Amino acid sequence: MNFSDRLIEAIKHKGSPICVGLDPILDKIPGTIVNMATEKHGPTLVAAAESILNFNKGLIDAVSDLVPAVKPQLAYYEQFGFHGLWAFEETCKYAKENGLIVIADAKRGDIGSTAQAYAKAFLGEVKVFGKKQPIFDADALTVNPYMGYDSLIPFIEESRKFGKGLFILVKTSNIGSGDLQDRVVDESGLKIHELTGHLVESWGADDIGVNGYSSIGAVVGATFASELKSLRKIMPSTFFLIPGYGAQGGSAKDVAGAFDLDGLGALINSSRAINYAYENLDGYSAENYAEAARAAVLEMKEDLAF
Amino acid sequence: MNFSDRLIEAIKHKGSPICVGLDPILDKIPGTIVNMATEKHGPTLVAAAESILNFNKGLIDAVSDLVPAVKPQLAYYEQFGFHGLWAFEETCKYAKENGLIVIADAKRGDIGSTAQAYAKAFLGEVKVFGKKQPIFDADALTVNPYMGYDSLIPFIEESRKFGKGLFILVKTSNIGSGDLQDRVVDESGLKIHELTGHLVESWGADDIGVNGYSSIGAVVGATFASELKSLRKIMPSTFFLIPGYGAQGGSAKDVAGAFDLDGLGALINSSRAINYAYENLDGYSAENYAEAARAAVLEMKEDLAF
Repeated sequence: MNFSDRLIEAIKHKGSPICVGLDPILDKIPGTIVNMATEKHGPTLVAAAESILNFNKGLIDAVSDLVPAVKPQLAYYEQFGFHGLWAFEETCKYAKENGLIVIADAKRGDIGSTAQAYAKAFLGEVKVFGKKQPIFDADALTVNPYMGYDSLIPFIEESRKFGKGLFILVKTSNIGSGDLQDRVVDESGLKIHELTGHLVESWGADDIGVNGYSSIGAVVGATFASELKSLRKIMPSTFFLIPGYGAQGGSAKDVAGAFDLDGLGALINSSRAINYAYENLDGYSAENYAEAARAAVLEMKEDLAF
Repeated sequence: MNFSDRLIEAIKHKGSPICVGLDPILDKIPGTIVNMATEKHGPTLVAAAESILNFNKGLIDAVSDLVPAVKPQLAYYEQFGFHGLWAFEETCKYAKENGLIVIADAKRGDIGSTAQAYAKAFLGEVKVFGKKQPIFDADALTVNPYMGYDSLIPFIEESRKFGKGLFILVKTSNIGSGDLQDRVVDESGLKIHELTGHLVESWGADDIGVNGYSSIGAVVGATFASELKSLRKIMPSTFFLIPGYGAQGGSAKDVAGAFDLDGLGALINSSRAINYAYENLDGYSAENYAEAARAAVLEMKEDLAF
């Protein structure tokens, strides 16, 4: 099944368009999880990797009936070296076993055979001594458009082949996103992010599912409500992955313009505000971070009034 | 010491401005290396990782007296999962032990604490249970500017703190690079890659070493000779990392405009044409890939007439 159809089915089934980011920060993981790992392995990278995996498993257990997708952010795993990448692989596996769609937030981008290697690693299969096998096997990947369409083709092809999806950066949620993305381009009078929006909409035209959305999606930040609205017009068939809700300041009102009349077309991500909800919600501590995360998701669901 | 000064010293010491890309492709690795690994570990990812590491060690041994730097391309390691990333770590270590500068070609780019996590992982130190330690400990990292200046600040800060460097994508070597990078922007009449060039030059102003070059460098493809020349004018203090020589079609004449009067200011990368030189040079086979690589580097050195 087409990725966008799979995503929409999951959104309907779970009754929410929420994506939970999995951004494990070692210092914020409860003592019981950390101690269990360090008692076995000492204060090592192995213990760090085991800690973040177990932290993630607790989060996944707590929210998997409420949300369609999770989004592990690669940097938080790579910071622990190859041990961290092991935790990333195991996290993806566990999330999928628990019926979640996994969006690898890696923002990769490169050309030719290099792009192909990334695409195969994250979405497809890699030939290992003549036998093809999946590696990270995520359901979707975030990618960067700066290098142009030919740099994205290997990702699009691999997505198509394996029923996976992409989210291409269009307008990111940070203040500095304007440095390049808001520049007006020549002939068209369009801003770079609008031009990229038009391009992404056209690049996704061959991958539109029965629900009218393409498996080639876009990343559009919640922090720029008017850009979000105008990009929705430019990109009627493009599914949006929307970071910047919650911790970064985007509100339910800000993201409203991303949805169609059926309440579909966008996945709203929240990472830290859910992972570390215990810091902000009354009556929770690190030890019951998972319950706090569940409460935060329920609150977000209500806030989005889905 | 400032990264750019360290790089220039190494270029002078080795007598060449050549960077050897390390892009291991399992199918092209000699049978003896592969068999040694598969006999121990079977046709597994562990054996794949061991094979690419040993292949790299052979290359490093063969060229370390001729070139100042190597550039492992992350995709070729990630394709073998966390085992592949282990091979990447060990490759970086081995290259540094052999007196080479290591440029991690990861083209990362993200915001806030995520960018910080990447920067610490690749260039700085990560806090693991209260104790800071280096992870990949590369000397420099390639990064993507699409998300704007604030997304690059964590990378610049980490570089400064640890005497490391960055190469920010400006004009990439692929045909499709024009899709965004060649668009003319509003007020200035500049193309996006020229605008990015101006920005990178200014972002690097505080990190200029005694040789007049900043540790905040740029990636500029060899395949667009006239853009290369005009970017050199726009960015007089920016060190260039230049892909696209050789296999991608860039010639010595194409890259000539990147150098200053002292023959400095640019590092010319070649990956496949050196890694797999045995395919193109007479009298070599996979088994003596390392000798072929050395011959190809010597040929390239002569071609660049350094």
